[in-house]
Amino acid sequence: MTSKKIRTIEEMGEFGLIDHLTSGFTNRQESTQLGVGDDAAVINHGAYMQVVTTDMLLEGVHFDLVYTPLKHLGYKAVVVNLSDVYAMNAAPRQITVSIGISGKFSVEALEEFYEGVKLACERFNVDLVGGDTSGSMTGLVITVTAIGTALKEELTLRSTAKNNQLICVTGDLGAAYMGLKILEREKLLHAEDPGFQPELTGYDYILERYLKPEPRVDVLLALKEAGITPGAMIDISDGLSSELLHICKASGCGCQVYDERIPVADETKEAAAEFQMEPMMAALHGGEDYELLFTVPLSDFDKVSAIEGVSVIGNITDKKGLALLVGNDGNAIQLQAQGWNATED
Amino acid sequence: MTSKKIRTIEEMGEFGLIDHLTSGFTNRQESTQLGVGDDAAVINHGAYMQVVTTDMLLEGVHFDLVYTPLKHLGYKAVVVNLSDVYAMNAAPRQITVSIGISGKFSVEALEEFYEGVKLACERFNVDLVGGDTSGSMTGLVITVTAIGTALKEELTLRSTAKNNQLICVTGDLGAAYMGLKILEREKLLHAEDPGFQPELTGYDYILERYLKPEPRVDVLLALKEAGITPGAMIDISDGLSSELLHICKASGCGCQVYDERIPVADETKEAAAEFQMEPMMAALHGGEDYELLFTVPLSDFDKVSAIEGVSVIGNITDKKGLALLVGNDGNAIQLQAQGWNATED
Repeated sequence: MTSKKIRTIEEMGEFGLIDHLTSGFTNRQESTQLGVGDDAAVINHGAYMQVVTTDMLLEGVHFDLVYTPLKHLGYKAVVVNLSDVYAMNAAPRQITVSIGISGKFSVEALEEFYEGVKLACERFNVDLVGGDTSGSMTGLVITVTAIGTALKEELTLRSTAKNNQLICVTGDLGAAYMGLKILEREKLLHAEDPGFQPELTGYDYILERYLKPEPRVDVLLALKEAGITPGAMIDISDGLSSELLHICKASGCGCQVYDERIPVADETKEAAAEFQMEPMMAALHGGEDYELLFTVPLSDFDKVSAIEGVSVIGNITDKKGLALLVGNDGNAIQLQAQGWNATED
Repeated sequence: MTSKKIRTIEEMGEFGLIDHLTSGFTNRQESTQLGVGDDAAVINHGAYMQVVTTDMLLEGVHFDLVYTPLKHLGYKAVVVNLSDVYAMNAAPRQITVSIGISGKFSVEALEEFYEGVKLACERFNVDLVGGDTSGSMTGLVITVTAIGTALKEELTLRSTAKNNQLICVTGDLGAAYMGLKILEREKLLHAEDPGFQPELTGYDYILERYLKPEPRVDVLLALKEAGITPGAMIDISDGLSSELLHICKASGCGCQVYDERIPVADETKEAAAEFQMEPMMAALHGGEDYELLFTVPLSDFDKVSAIEGVSVIGNITDKKGLALLVGNDGNAIQLQAQGWNATED
């Protein structure tokens, strides 16, 4: 028996938990360049670096089969991993896909899922090289591992942001979250009244943002063409707020971003209005946008501003760990880390 | 609507299902040396090869937390993947560990799991380089991916068995399955009468074989020292019968193995007697032994026979797809492929 307080996972938060559980591990292999703590691990192959990342998607937590077509799910399961590879400024090469399936699935249902996996492989030029298929007593379980490569000098980590660098995001934020809110609302209405027909017209943009996210390879190519190597980079899977804090923590810096510069689509604003919520909340905390958040030197302002789909939203500061959101009135609020949120989505 | 018959997963079997689902995929990356269909995928890095393998373990299917200590589970989850790397005659280097956990888990429980992961990392000299941690609405879900390296000429596939080669196995077979049977029996007795104390003394060997399997690195080293490069190799995770058929299918050959030469421990025989079952059934179909099955040239008979922990059990034939088990009476029966068995264990 111990009198030590039993801590709960909620108290530690997801990232605190990972830090805690992996803190006692020591790397032994010469080729292990970077372990836990970035979008992907890095394995040193001399002439080039290899990145490895993995994501687990669980039914009832990360997706709901009531409104998620299996083909979209297969596509998304791959793409969220490729997004992590791209966020290292690396090119994805291979993936493995493991699935646990309950008895309710037919071969045809699985074929749909693999159609989506295949589409992602074709579109992003990656090879499916392995995996595991197993029965599941409960819901559908998916784990994808993605492997990519980058030249050493091109690899972009979370930990390399520098004071005064500009903070940029691609695309717009919060749309995926509002798409999910709409799907959840229609599901609920349908559950209350089985005769109710879900009304999804007019929400195409935000629904697609949730169901079929696209990694921003286009922006990475544009950055390369413009001769810009990002200082630090991360993909936005958990919401802008959480990702900014990751960069600040890893780079030992602070940041300030400007409310009015954070890109939010009109469709996102309209959907947020229906739920009487601030669109900025979706952008900051919604997650699943799979856009890129990166820093560039101040001197690249003109070049980066000229790239379509990139918004400069603020800058890195030397105030370690302090992430500020500056409102239109000039007042700043401090961005907070998200708690354990995987089961809340 | 389609009139096409909806096939069930049971009808196709696990391996038929994987073949079917991945058949439409084409490899595009120059570095993809070998995709789906062996213990691990192979990525070509020029001077050497890299192998990648992944396994998903689901609560209620692959393990039961009633009788599986979390530390053992962490150790085993890593080791079953390392076993696949060793079965390619490669050295494991890095792993990722992803877990989905329900609310019932405390941080301390997860610490125990990671203690086991750490022990495996230390013992087999591999680095934990990443993973994913997520809430789960249902049970515990674990996916481990392992990465290893081998020189091109040392890499050993399933597909390279040749006619007349000797078939060898390491250790003894069926023990893990009998260990599982004992644990299941005691669990049932305890469920019927909560006052019942599980009686596990005397079963140490078979319990340890199930709860804490050890990959046969020792035999790989001995083979290397003896100057033997296996023809084909696979690890025994699903039972000898299934693995023999994998080698026959991949190598386009047949095989015959001799009943009396298949190594079964006395403890396994004794436990089988308690259940009034043939120990050979456990050896052929039980699985989870994580021993190695490999072939060697006939000329290596003396050398391989001298290695401790290796049994020569038969030979490869040119009768494509025909796997025979020859009994003491000289009569042969044809070994059958296992069906979809992940939910039966």
